[in-house]
Amino acid sequence: MFDLKSYLKSRADEVNAALETYLPEDGDYMGNLGEVMRYSVFPGGKRFRPILALAACEALGCDRALAMPAACSFELIHCFSLVHDDLPCMDNDVERRGKPTCHVAFGEDTALLAGDGLSIYAFEVAAQSAQKVSAEATVRVIRELAYASGHPGMVGGQILDMDAQHHGATKDSLLAVHRAKTGALIRGAARVGAIIAGANEDQLQAITEYAELVGLVFQITDDILDYEDDPDPISFPGLYGMEDSRRMAAEATERALACISQFGDSAEPLRALANYLLDRQS
Amino acid sequence: MFDLKSYLKSRADEVNAALETYLPEDGDYMGNLGEVMRYSVFPGGKRFRPILALAACEALGCDRALAMPAACSFELIHCFSLVHDDLPCMDNDVERRGKPTCHVAFGEDTALLAGDGLSIYAFEVAAQSAQKVSAEATVRVIRELAYASGHPGMVGGQILDMDAQHHGATKDSLLAVHRAKTGALIRGAARVGAIIAGANEDQLQAITEYAELVGLVFQITDDILDYEDDPDPISFPGLYGMEDSRRMAAEATERALACISQFGDSAEPLRALANYLLDRQS
Repeated sequence: MFDLKSYLKSRADEVNAALETYLPEDGDYMGNLGEVMRYSVFPGGKRFRPILALAACEALGCDRALAMPAACSFELIHCFSLVHDDLPCMDNDVERRGKPTCHVAFGEDTALLAGDGLSIYAFEVAAQSAQKVSAEATVRVIRELAYASGHPGMVGGQILDMDAQHHGATKDSLLAVHRAKTGALIRGAARVGAIIAGANEDQLQAITEYAELVGLVFQITDDILDYEDDPDPISFPGLYGMEDSRRMAAEATERALACISQFGDSAEPLRALANYLLDRQS
Repeated sequence: MFDLKSYLKSRADEVNAALETYLPEDGDYMGNLGEVMRYSVFPGGKRFRPILALAACEALGCDRALAMPAACSFELIHCFSLVHDDLPCMDNDVERRGKPTCHVAFGEDTALLAGDGLSIYAFEVAAQSAQKVSAEATVRVIRELAYASGHPGMVGGQILDMDAQHHGATKDSLLAVHRAKTGALIRGAARVGAIIAGANEDQLQAITEYAELVGLVFQITDDILDYEDDPDPISFPGLYGMEDSRRMAAEATERALACISQFGDSAEPLRALANYLLDRQS
């Protein structure tokens, strides 16, 4: 029986150790920028995106250490997006993960710049893949990162989300928002793990579809968990109802598992992760 | 006699044409993100950074078309930085280049995201260098872009600049702010042009020193031009006095020209550019 809990703990520890080397306490920062960037990255959350990248790499039988820079680059982008999302002109959140948000702690101008710094640094870290894999694979990783996080992906999804908040959403537009705003980064993280592992076209396609489906499950279960406290009409339970939302999540999980059935034991972490996302209570 | 005016016009036209292909009007954008990103890039200013990248590439006898993606990536970063600099939490500017700033025209949240989108897209455009040069050179270009624009460069310099505005500046701290905030991007633009051209270590060093010096001249003359309208104490004339500022600019120009004396006729544009930056009236 695969022990997902200790797997997630050990992988999160690895990711955190790598992030420490990329953003060391005594790094060469200007002013308080190092402190603020570190504040926005540590202690961090579940490290779901980088763990997914490592797990996709492992599923294809490759040493996950090769995928660590690419994996961390996706986490840095995720952290940047949280800093900018929390700003007064966006969600105006004052607390995240039990501490004051970045702009509350350091001021709005500094938080804006720390977010910019993390976003740009993500590409430097992704480029460091070239120390472990070919320059060609590194360029592919960088393009995946830009596509997943930029206007075709996460940033575009935030624009769609703002439109939906102002003008209302349909089932279709909710799916489009999700696919770009949160799905693209999850999809991209899994893809870079597979690319680093030298996936062929079929394997990359299987990992991509798996990740699109677990990304959907991630969002549906997130919406379900939030819905009891805050019944947002622009959410899966709000637009599809609770029962249909649960059924969609269960079906997507089944299909995700089918996508990676070809991979054997090395894909156990990916399977356990899919089942966990469906059943999670937090 | 080298005709700089028509050179700058023809190169700016080339850069604008390339930027149009990277950000086409009918591109695949979400919501109004394409409109807002284009608003922040066109019609644009002098396109000084990309022209410098192309000129450095030409100086080393290389086809400048190979450097176009790298050149444009620096312009996209420059445009992103202007959008975020203009935000209410930063300089709170309402007009730029004769039109409303991005957040005045589209709202603060949309401007924030358009800036993020441009910053990320710069790396995608830089990665497209791989269609023209080796993947190894492309990875180097991407690392130059991240270093020049991120916390070791432009973003770090903005933090230092904010510190200086709050706590005052010395001659040394003014130089440090300039070197990071505006110098790093100018230096990086010239370096990527040279890297694309396959510069050896000596050539790259010469181009780097040239760019550091013309970047300094650019800043000094900018400060001098601004000083009559707005005698900012944190500026070269404010801290060094007008006479010393002019002498520093003239000396830096001489040294910049000496750096590239080895390059022959192909470096005429770099020479004319250095002289123009010293003598410019706008």
